[in-house]
Amino acid sequence: MEIPVTPKTTRTAFVALIAALLLTAAPARADEGMWLFDNPPTQLLKQRYNFEPTAAWLEHLQKASVRFNSGGSGSFVSADGLVMTNHHVAADALQKISTKDKDYIRTGFHARTRQEEIRSVDEELNVLYSIEDVTARVNAAVKPGVDSAAAQQARRGVINTIEKESLDKTGLRSDVVTLYNGGRYSLYRYKKYTDVRLVFAPERDIAFFGGDPDNFEYPRYCLDVSFFRVYENGQPAKIEHYLKWSAEGAKENELTFVSGHPGRTDRLNTIPHLEFLRDVGNPVSLNLIRRREVLLTAYSARSLENARRAQDDLFAYQNSRKARLGMLEGLQDPAILRQKRQEDEALRAAVRKDAKLEPAYGKAWDDVAAAVKTYRSIYMPHYLWERGMAFYSELFSTARGLVRMAEETAKPNNERLREYSEAGLESLKQQLFSEAPIYNDLETAKLADSLSMLIETLGAEDELVVKVMAGKPPQQRAAELVNGTRLGDVAVRKQIAAGGVKAIQESKDPMIQLARLVDPVARQLRQTYEAQVDEPMRQAYGKIAQARFAVYGTNVYPDATFTLRLAFGQVKGYSENGRPVPSSTTIAGAYTRSEEHGGREPFALPKSWIDSRPRLTLNTPFNFVSTADIIGGNSGSPVVNRNGELVGIIFDGNIESLVLDFIYTDTVARAVAVHSAGILEGLRKVYRADGLVAELTGRRQ
Amino acid sequence: MEIPVTPKTTRTAFVALIAALLLTAAPARADEGMWLFDNPPTQLLKQRYNFEPTAAWLEHLQKASVRFNSGGSGSFVSADGLVMTNHHVAADALQKISTKDKDYIRTGFHARTRQEEIRSVDEELNVLYSIEDVTARVNAAVKPGVDSAAAQQARRGVINTIEKESLDKTGLRSDVVTLYNGGRYSLYRYKKYTDVRLVFAPERDIAFFGGDPDNFEYPRYCLDVSFFRVYENGQPAKIEHYLKWSAEGAKENELTFVSGHPGRTDRLNTIPHLEFLRDVGNPVSLNLIRRREVLLTAYSARSLENARRAQDDLFAYQNSRKARLGMLEGLQDPAILRQKRQEDEALRAAVRKDAKLEPAYGKAWDDVAAAVKTYRSIYMPHYLWERGMAFYSELFSTARGLVRMAEETAKPNNERLREYSEAGLESLKQQLFSEAPIYNDLETAKLADSLSMLIETLGAEDELVVKVMAGKPPQQRAAELVNGTRLGDVAVRKQIAAGGVKAIQESKDPMIQLARLVDPVARQLRQTYEAQVDEPMRQAYGKIAQARFAVYGTNVYPDATFTLRLAFGQVKGYSENGRPVPSSTTIAGAYTRSEEHGGREPFALPKSWIDSRPRLTLNTPFNFVSTADIIGGNSGSPVVNRNGELVGIIFDGNIESLVLDFIYTDTVARAVAVHSAGILEGLRKVYRADGLVAELTGRRQ
Repeated sequence: MEIPVTPKTTRTAFVALIAALLLTAAPARADEGMWLFDNPPTQLLKQRYNFEPTAAWLEHLQKASVRFNSGGSGSFVSADGLVMTNHHVAADALQKISTKDKDYIRTGFHARTRQEEIRSVDEELNVLYSIEDVTARVNAAVKPGVDSAAAQQARRGVINTIEKESLDKTGLRSDVVTLYNGGRYSLYRYKKYTDVRLVFAPERDIAFFGGDPDNFEYPRYCLDVSFFRVYENGQPAKIEHYLKWSAEGAKENELTFVSGHPGRTDRLNTIPHLEFLRDVGNPVSLNLIRRREVLLTAYSARSLENARRAQDDLFAYQNSRKARLGMLEGLQDPAILRQKRQEDEALRAAVRKDAKLEPAYGKAWDDVAAAVKTYRSIYMPHYLWERGMAFYSELFSTARGLVRMAEETAKPNNERLREYSEAGLESLKQQLFSEAPIYNDLETAKLADSLSMLIETLGAEDELVVKVMAGKPPQQRAAELVNGTRLGDVAVRKQIAAGGVKAIQESKDPMIQLARLVDPVARQLRQTYEAQVDEPMRQAYGKIAQARFAVYGTNVYPDATFTLRLAFGQVKGYSENGRPVPSSTTIAGAYTRSEEHGGREPFALPKSWIDSRPRLTLNTPFNFVSTADIIGGNSGSPVVNRNGELVGIIFDGNIESLVLDFIYTDTVARAVAVHSAGILEGLRKVYRADGLVAELTGRRQ
Repeated sequence: MEIPVTPKTTRTAFVALIAALLLTAAPARADEGMWLFDNPPTQLLKQRYNFEPTAAWLEHLQKASVRFNSGGSGSFVSADGLVMTNHHVAADALQKISTKDKDYIRTGFHARTRQEEIRSVDEELNVLYSIEDVTARVNAAVKPGVDSAAAQQARRGVINTIEKESLDKTGLRSDVVTLYNGGRYSLYRYKKYTDVRLVFAPERDIAFFGGDPDNFEYPRYCLDVSFFRVYENGQPAKIEHYLKWSAEGAKENELTFVSGHPGRTDRLNTIPHLEFLRDVGNPVSLNLIRRREVLLTAYSARSLENARRAQDDLFAYQNSRKARLGMLEGLQDPAILRQKRQEDEALRAAVRKDAKLEPAYGKAWDDVAAAVKTYRSIYMPHYLWERGMAFYSELFSTARGLVRMAEETAKPNNERLREYSEAGLESLKQQLFSEAPIYNDLETAKLADSLSMLIETLGAEDELVVKVMAGKPPQQRAAELVNGTRLGDVAVRKQIAAGGVKAIQESKDPMIQLARLVDPVARQLRQTYEAQVDEPMRQAYGKIAQARFAVYGTNVYPDATFTLRLAFGQVKGYSENGRPVPSSTTIAGAYTRSEEHGGREPFALPKSWIDSRPRLTLNTPFNFVSTADIIGGNSGSPVVNRNGELVGIIFDGNIESLVLDFIYTDTVARAVAVHSAGILEGLRKVYRADGLVAELTGRRQ
């Protein structure tokens, strides 16, 4: 939870939230749900809004929706491959094409011709083409009675195989997705775009107006949008399904839809699993986030160039910090946990009194608890060695990728670790061989900090820690690794990759040697995690999901998995401490808020906005809120109306929405979007982006 | 360790440092030592510099030295009670007299007449008048063979009694100080000043030029000075011992002395005790520091007024973070720990082969190890409940102070907790009844964050945690406590204090009730700590100290204890990565560095300095370094020459000096000071502070 300027507000909001939760009994609440496109909330929409989406309506929205694999959502907005997303989603690509002399995050960018569009370094966009239920085949591969290690291996093997078969058959990116925490397995096939070119981005100061203080807050005044264009064979891709632009945009009380890729929720978690997040998961993450935020802030303060180098990482950590704090405040609220417990126990009681359900699923809750207990016991070593938190370094990640790719690709596909399976190799290589810039000073600072954390956490006498440190203190060891490795050179990476296992074994590169040194322990921890935590949880949650289907019906949505979902909700204000918060803001509000803060960072408006103020229609809607059910990963999701027209783009949720990780509420929680009218007004009058406007509005010049 | 812009530099520096350490065999190195005024380094000074300080020389320097009880050092610089310290030491007082409309830290202050001098809210200054060895009496009170709880009680009792007797006899503040970790007890008598008025402070931007990036770095360009005047009976105090100003100031290679109050070192610690700092003490502190730095940074970003409210706390945490990181980098360096181990083992071996020493002191090392082990086992509960880290709130501290003062003062003096003994009550009340402003929004944010940490650390189900939280999440509980308490009003505090135990027991104030709720557990932890950690350590370190005296002689200095010490060293540059670093900088350098950073924060110079540039003699020395042995707490210490004239004022140490906590080195470690000539130049030409200059230079108008 962020520090409230007016603590009373938040307090009251939380009281209201809890009151609302306690009144609710049914498993789905109001506009709740991150629905699957192959199991949409048809009934709910009919009941609540008398709206029945047709198959064509759904297919159009699905195929107009885009996933940014760097972590976000977007949509096609023209027939010529134009994609809209948030500026803060584009930031990853902007950072990677920026240099000391050209900081695209800060200054923005505008290609007035196709020739001026800049290709991103390693961006991959996915468009969902089809969904196929493969649950039966996945579960059939796991023979009854085998231990969980064998079960895990069999499951992983069949998933790798399914993906490879699908890739070979269709040429489409093929991912087997685990839904309902293991209740269903679906094969998602994506059209993939890797030639992704930057068309337009506004300046950071208007895209992220209000900065960290206003992040996860509302009212807001941000032009958090950017545009890319996808190319195929050197030409703009021809897109059949793209969203028509609504010049009027979202209106108060209107039903809207959000089609995007929520990253992760924990709503189906049992109580011990939520307690684990409260006691271990979130606190450990927050400690890491804070230490990296402090590290990057201190690094950034040294010079503008340092600040430029670290800005995308720093934003990511600040953003995560606020998100995690909001989640933790919810998890540390006994009233919310009580509500979750009641819901969990209601389902369990229903199972218990059913003679068929109880023997089939009754034990599953204990199985989750046991898996969670195991996870607690290996959490920190697994976090440090296998998840790599001991090595906060792009160069180390590259080294590990090379080491493992060599070893894994030497095995049959069905025996490989998931991320080295045949179907995913192309995408993996796009990342491993990325030309994204690496700064040795920043790498050294980051790696030294994480090595220090490693010593603090596992102890200076831990056998592997001693080997990793090689008798040196963190700064010195980090500098020697970063300055000694040649992995900054992509040609070197490719050469090593081409040499296979032999090249890895013979490599004198210190980062490769480090990655090799820790790999046996890291792999062992992974094996323990997969066999004793992940697999038992899949099995147990699979059962709980079946129980839920049996008790509540199958028209329920799974937790978020960074796959395409449909949410819906009304454009609606709310009341905070008795004070009404309107459903939308206007462009005028940005100027007012900037003036209230004397035009100081992060409330400084860019020169372009100051200069164009007289031209703007100041009462144009700028940002708005709705009750749609979203979470991180939904950033950049299109908001559409009943006609499927684009009326806005999601870029945030308010503070009160952060508990949506584990519980839905619409009392005060809101999704925050940029309004389509505000976007057009800015493009037209601030940026004079006539070509882009014409393309968006279908009146190409 | 701060993130180095050039990692190579630090690496090389460390290599050089370690090489130097390994070459050294004797227990004292070069200009090492924070010496006692009643055991000065006479022999060493004679040998190295052919200088023999007389008793009068020492007494003059001692009585011209001032301790700021808010945490720092200073000196008398005129016969009329003028005291010089650092701006960053004055910051505590500046913060407390500042308001929304007048931010003295940022803008500085200049009283051109006595009438304009502003009285600080709760500052207390101490001047050391006498030292008396009371070791025999303290140790005699501890009867042989009693258990450590009884020993601790007896020791505490006799110390309280000695202080009270001394206060009654002399009227002077009387503190029994533990030296050599328990090897000696000395009674320090201080003249106390509580009417402390602000005379002059420069703007923050020149006092702390370079901000966090340049903190603990060198070369530096800071006017980190401020002036107060102490009053007695409403008149400027008449001061016999004050330092004469050297207009020329420190010169290259000159022998200089530093007389100040180093806060704490750990050089006499045995290896398990150092490992404890490496594994527990420093990492726990750093986690706390980082979380508070992030909290205060986020709070500050919301508005200029927020930034003003939090600035002194935020600076303190940023400062601590860099200091602790430097210490931890040293502790995590196997080479340094090896050196410490060799030294420790050399002493132990000498004891072992001595038939008298071994039976008397041989077991002491194991006793320290055992006490450290116990401390590890209670560290976090003790840290949270007794040291109060669970309650990051001025209002809570006040509540606890009131609760304990009522209970303790009802007991005989010799049974009281140390901080409530008769001799210290007056100083305690000065703090408890301070009119320093308290901001409820900031208090709420701080308290909520620490409550969240409490839940994270001890668990949401801990019995006392559950009671503390009262069924609410952290933000809500913090807001209800802060908004519910009336302790913001000093009159209310005084009323409760006057009512004694009864008033406490009957109080409905939620903060008082909270302090009462946690007090039994907190006191129990304190009792365990004092009886099973502190007392055994005192006894064991007392023995190790005796062993050290027997082996190396008594001319050794104890670890720092925030009491007056004498250090010495040469004004001397050093070599960093083969590049010479000069011993002093000039005023011109400030302008150059500011320009290199485009005049941006924290490298922005204040308007006064920009405007007065043409008037300044730009090659005037500004800052300089020496090999003197200093640490945090020495901030504001006068630097004097052989004639006892003031040539500078300590304000920092470089990054490489941070290991001085546990090991001295002069290879690259340096104390950083403002040069007396630079101060005069600034006062004369930037601030036109003619009256102040006349007073400093003895040419009063």
